[in-house]
Amino acid sequence: MKSKCFKLSAAIVSTATVVGKKEHEGPLSPHFDFFSDNDRFGQKTWEAAESEMQRMALSYAMRKAKVQTEDVDVMFAGDLLNQCVGSAYGLLSYDIPYLGLYGACSTCAEGLLLASSMVTAGFADLAAAVTSSHNTSAERQFRYPVEYGGQRPPTGQWTVTGAGAFLVTAMKNLNVNTPPMAYVTAGMPGIVLDLGINDVGNMGAAMAPAAQSTLMRYFKETDTSPKDYDVIVTGDLGWEGGRILCDLMTAEGMDISDRYQDCGRMIFSKNTQDTHSGGSGCGCSATVLGGYLLPKLASGDIRRMLFMATGALMSPDSLKQGNNIPGVAHLLCLESPITEKGNL
Amino acid sequence: MKSKCFKLSAAIVSTATVVGKKEHEGPLSPHFDFFSDNDRFGQKTWEAAESEMQRMALSYAMRKAKVQTEDVDVMFAGDLLNQCVGSAYGLLSYDIPYLGLYGACSTCAEGLLLASSMVTAGFADLAAAVTSSHNTSAERQFRYPVEYGGQRPPTGQWTVTGAGAFLVTAMKNLNVNTPPMAYVTAGMPGIVLDLGINDVGNMGAAMAPAAQSTLMRYFKETDTSPKDYDVIVTGDLGWEGGRILCDLMTAEGMDISDRYQDCGRMIFSKNTQDTHSGGSGCGCSATVLGGYLLPKLASGDIRRMLFMATGALMSPDSLKQGNNIPGVAHLLCLESPITEKGNL
Repeated sequence: MKSKCFKLSAAIVSTATVVGKKEHEGPLSPHFDFFSDNDRFGQKTWEAAESEMQRMALSYAMRKAKVQTEDVDVMFAGDLLNQCVGSAYGLLSYDIPYLGLYGACSTCAEGLLLASSMVTAGFADLAAAVTSSHNTSAERQFRYPVEYGGQRPPTGQWTVTGAGAFLVTAMKNLNVNTPPMAYVTAGMPGIVLDLGINDVGNMGAAMAPAAQSTLMRYFKETDTSPKDYDVIVTGDLGWEGGRILCDLMTAEGMDISDRYQDCGRMIFSKNTQDTHSGGSGCGCSATVLGGYLLPKLASGDIRRMLFMATGALMSPDSLKQGNNIPGVAHLLCLESPITEKGNL
Repeated sequence: MKSKCFKLSAAIVSTATVVGKKEHEGPLSPHFDFFSDNDRFGQKTWEAAESEMQRMALSYAMRKAKVQTEDVDVMFAGDLLNQCVGSAYGLLSYDIPYLGLYGACSTCAEGLLLASSMVTAGFADLAAAVTSSHNTSAERQFRYPVEYGGQRPPTGQWTVTGAGAFLVTAMKNLNVNTPPMAYVTAGMPGIVLDLGINDVGNMGAAMAPAAQSTLMRYFKETDTSPKDYDVIVTGDLGWEGGRILCDLMTAEGMDISDRYQDCGRMIFSKNTQDTHSGGSGCGCSATVLGGYLLPKLASGDIRRMLFMATGALMSPDSLKQGNNIPGVAHLLCLESPITEKGNL
């Protein structure tokens, strides 16, 4: 079978992150660009607040890269809201060609994969990937009104209030004015898997098999193994799903536990912030990648990293109709522009 | 400003279409591959029926092309349902890497644009684009339960029950075993526009300015004009939106009315099927393109065509919160493999 791994020659040249109050109070606080102390970002609705986060993130990513709207050839964006209105309204003020995505919490990797593919192929000189989630807009859409005070199970996760924007160009376009934060050297779109999980309070378990599937396909098709990467990081499997992924990989003879991390585990304190199994949402992987991991790649602290954002592709209606929760995981290989080896 | 039009070297090698009862009773009936006389496709829910249409469409498109699951390197899919579950569940049985899209009714063009880009760039040998809509799943999600019997205004459109699947390869991969139906020679992603329309009963008016914007940008960047194309066809502007687009284009000195068509106008009979302003939905442009227009390109009856699927990027919630309806239109230039000129 031929390889379904994309060979990419792209570079992330800028990123910006916007988070809510709880994320600002978490261990990664110093790494984020903006926060709102009431999660509203000056807006009247939670949905408008989510859109505003996307607008701010892209605006600041463009400002950091010293580029204007007309310099960005295409943008990929998506979020968790019905009909992806977080992105549609949030990026409405930019006169940039817009391609909407729905990959649930995998959207950050999906957007970066497509943006990197477009610049590698020369269809775009500069492409953007933007995504977001908002705890309160997600709670009322997917679960209960927050006023109801619904109990979450220990395996439940906390949707991150956050947005991340990334600007990507082809390696050959790089020059002294646009130093790269990281190279994107490979990408692999995930296959949707349904292993029978239907517990909406345990999304990590629903997504872990998809992460295993993508990772195993990637190692096989690139003839590499965990030791070839300093860090293997998933988007939001959380404490529960991450443990399942490590177990599944060990069962395949590929122990990743010594270099495994998960954005949902990193963004909140396990001891002092009550988020049960950790963070989740498109904004989780986007803000941790943009705020924390990319600077470590830029500095050479991480040399080579696999980044897999994971998504659960159900809807509240599909669960009520008796369906399981299908999962998907898209993978990117990110490499440091600095060649000395380091650790997370 | 540099061109934001993608130069593509792709070919659509197979397509299949699945429609519901009303579409089967319409003027394009002989051109569709499958129909269900109760819109259920053997399923218990309308949402499952929509998923089943996607599964059937991709299955038959692959059968026509004599290819297997492992031959398809990546698929792009999306629909109108919350969290795009029509696609996620419909394509779950295929072990093909899956990239989910949300472009509302523009999804057919968005998927074909990305699939064509991927094969042109060599990331995939064979890529699929699949999309669907279902009248009854859309009615209850976006409007009223059908039992309520809500009145629709004269500018209202009828969501098409239908799915279309397309298989795309690079021109250089073509051989006698895979004759092309049409070449995809250019693509242009649309910019999201909000011209202040907030009437959910007049989506054509909300989307027409986006179609005008994409068309004007395309003509300018490619230095072509309407006379260079036999047919200019939009996805689902319907009678109302199509009239607005022609007026907007005429005001710009670009009369397209003698070669303009719209899938939403073609799929239902204006006289005998009561759909007011015509058909709409991702399945509208997908089934008319796949069932009716592509065979005309394959036979040379149409030589060169611009296909623009249009989307309205609102949600029921965003409208209740006082937002307008932003529109987007993605464009493809499709050319016949047969070089003699013809007419629609």
